[in-house]
Amino acid sequence: MPDTPGTSRDTKRMEAFSDAVFAIAITLPIVEIEMPQLHGTPGLGAELARLWPSYLGYLLSFLVIGIYWTHHHFSGKIYARADHGFLLATLVFLMMIAFIAFPTRVLAEHIADAANRPAAARFYVLGLLLTALAWLVKWLSGLWGGSLDERLDPAYVRRLTWQYSVSTGVYVAAALLSLASPLAGLALAAAVTLYYLRRPPDPVYRAGREGPE
Amino acid sequence: MPDTPGTSRDTKRMEAFSDAVFAIAITLPIVEIEMPQLHGTPGLGAELARLWPSYLGYLLSFLVIGIYWTHHHFSGKIYARADHGFLLATLVFLMMIAFIAFPTRVLAEHIADAANRPAAARFYVLGLLLTALAWLVKWLSGLWGGSLDERLDPAYVRRLTWQYSVSTGVYVAAALLSLASPLAGLALAAAVTLYYLRRPPDPVYRAGREGPE
Amino acid sequence: MPDTPGTSRDTKRMEAFSDAVFAIAITLPIVEIEMPQLHGTPGLGAELARLWPSYLGYLLSFLVIGIYWTHHHFSGKIYARADHGFLLATLVFLMMIAFIAFPTRVLAEHIADAANRPAAARFYVLGLLLTALAWLVKWLSGLWGGSLDERLDPAYVRRLTWQYSVSTGVYVAAALLSLASPLAGLALAAAVTLYYLRRPPDPVYRAGREGPE
Amino acid sequence: MPDTPGTSRDTKRMEAFSDAVFAIAITLPIVEIEMPQLHGTPGLGAELARLWPSYLGYLLSFLVIGIYWTHHHFSGKIYARADHGFLLATLVFLMMIAFIAFPTRVLAEHIADAANRPAAARFYVLGLLLTALAWLVKWLSGLWGGSLDERLDPAYVRRLTWQYSVSTGVYVAAALLSLASPLAGLALAAAVTLYYLRRPPDPVYRAGREGPE
Repeated sequence: MPDTPGTSRDTKRMEAFSDAVFAIAITLPIVEIEMPQLHGTPGLGAELARLWPSYLGYLLSFLVIGIYWTHHHFSGKIYARADHGFLLATLVFLMMIAFIAFPTRVLAEHIADAANRPAAARFYVLGLLLTALAWLVKWLSGLWGGSLDERLDPAYVRRLTWQYSVSTGVYVAAALLSLASPLAGLALAAAVTLYYLRRPPDPVYRAGREGPE
Repeated sequence: MPDTPGTSRDTKRMEAFSDAVFAIAITLPIVEIEMPQLHGTPGLGAELARLWPSYLGYLLSFLVIGIYWTHHHFSGKIYARADHGFLLATLVFLMMIAFIAFPTRVLAEHIADAANRPAAARFYVLGLLLTALAWLVKWLSGLWGGSLDERLDPAYVRRLTWQYSVSTGVYVAAALLSLASPLAGLALAAAVTLYYLRRPPDPVYRAGREGPE
Repeated sequence: MPDTPGTSRDTKRMEAFSDAVFAIAITLPIVEIEMPQLHGTPGLGAELARLWPSYLGYLLSFLVIGIYWTHHHFSGKIYARADHGFLLATLVFLMMIAFIAFPTRVLAEHIADAANRPAAARFYVLGLLLTALAWLVKWLSGLWGGSLDERLDPAYVRRLTWQYSVSTGVYVAAALLSLASPLAGLALAAAVTLYYLRRPPDPVYRAGREGPE
Repeated sequence: MPDTPGTSRDTKRMEAFSDAVFAIAITLPIVEIEMPQLHGTPGLGAELARLWPSYLGYLLSFLVIGIYWTHHHFSGKIYARADHGFLLATLVFLMMIAFIAFPTRVLAEHIADAANRPAAARFYVLGLLLTALAWLVKWLSGLWGGSLDERLDPAYVRRLTWQYSVSTGVYVAAALLSLASPLAGLALAAAVTLYYLRRPPDPVYRAGREGPE
């Protein structure tokens, strides 16, 4: 079947759009750090120190969005086209990427507030779960809709499907666990997330097929 | 008539600029979700649940801007150049795209407020109407100003002109209907908008002319 | 003189960076429109109508930044390189582009406030003057630093230098006039600005030299 | 050793992402300038003049982020690839670039507040130090991870390593000095920063090797 003009969308513009959303989502939380209002009374140093949960929130949100970006950046290499379903799934994923800053802030601002820490931890784990789920749906939508580069080795593709499914499963477990023990759920969800700090595996191509570029 | 240097502008930079405005407009609403201020008193879970209209507003605004983006993304393929009038019409359209988040938030924040829901619904329908109108003006400006790729099949172009005009007409009807029954007007406007979730039709080229790429 | 590697910077990345700043500056003012806080008491319709100065500010700021963008977009065609001085002058210009939204909002929010309208008009005219001055400095920096495409017809270049200088002069006159009569100064500054809504003149090349692309 | 597909990442997308973060970080501070709330009582002129620390903060933040951008822009020319470690180091650097606007605002808003100026100056110097440190780490990560273009002259690379290390050392000295004398520490940190306003040195290539493009 030849490539009829317009039946597939090229991935370049979608990548550029995604990267722009990532860049905005990762930068915006800086406006949420509120400046102390002292109006001439001393104590700025103490006030700036007291803001540590806000700095922590900014750092955490940069970390999580940054981790997703390194994997999204990488995955840009393995799509050959972007059909309409994949476009919509990507939009849903980007919606979660921009949203995740909010539960992150909620967690950071209540990390030292014993009364609200459990609810904040549950909300954050739920946010991580929904983001991981959106990532998995995007992956499956690309896989089933034929957007993946067909030169990829099927074993490599199966391994990624497996990995993303297991991760999402662990986030589900973490969310359930957080109902009983918020901090244990948080620790589990944090562990899966940090696992993705390591280098994404290089794409593997079928024997005799060359990779991109 | 040969293409004199500078008489036409290439569309690449305008597309990149539009995509950047889309990316910012779709992401910015996240800063409008206000974090509960509990200062140590318990109740964060209930407060986070009480924020559902804010989450709904974020979701709705992502949905509507996302739908326009998928069509804008697609339409990038059918313009061959961007003359000054088309550039200005695109700016007006982008102004509405960035604005639409405001009526969306107004609607979402008052969806459970019986006293103000009618006004919020009318304002939202008006916002959708103005955005659709700006899209139609942009389309007509591209069509009449000669920015469209001339290899496109005239029947295909007529079909799009017809579709965008009818949609705008339905939004006008929804706005008028919303004066009598805000929720009926809202339902009609929502129906037209959701119609555009489906895949845009592939460009059709004149017989014997090849498409782009 | 051959083009030694690294002695000149290519203009592509600077254009992309400038366009991103333009896109953000033009979109950000939407977050400044404050949503009515009614908490269940009716009157949303009236409150939304009462916000007209905010809508006007958003519109005005989109208009002015948009006008500069169409000219900046155009001027991207006439630079062949970007030396360090031109880079710095462009940054100063972008600083004014992002700043102009503030005096625009000040003007719009006080347009119906007789006591403060004169100060708001003066502040706005000053903002327009500084932006025009930054544009002129950027132009001269490109001209004197050798960033302009040398195939351009010298008469064409002189005409633009003349036009930008005269415009800046008129803004200076408008700022001085606004000290005596704020509204007359505002009208003069608005007139120069709106003049730039028309299509920028196409680049003219020396006889026997071809233009870009 | 041939370039196995996927073992190295191309630098284009990382540059575009970095430039987007720079563009947002440099533009966002404009939303922090708060409009005077006069509600019809006169005095707007005086209120706008009273806002000078906010204007100063915006200017300073544009200056510092702009300086880093000109060097980042330049350094885009000297990387041949981006391995995972370099990607993470770049994210940490971008996190500081977006953060630096906050200490800048803290400094500007307290520059005329004698009681809090010392703390504000220390916080700002600390912010500059962390940003310079993140830049140095990014540089070393690119150098040690093999992301640098290997055609660069080793003497040129050593000179940059030396320069960035010395600058970071001076920022450390400024931070320590600011404990004893905040304004002396601030002056020293400002001096190093302004030093980078000058043109970055052109890349120097090994004899017989051509530069990029």
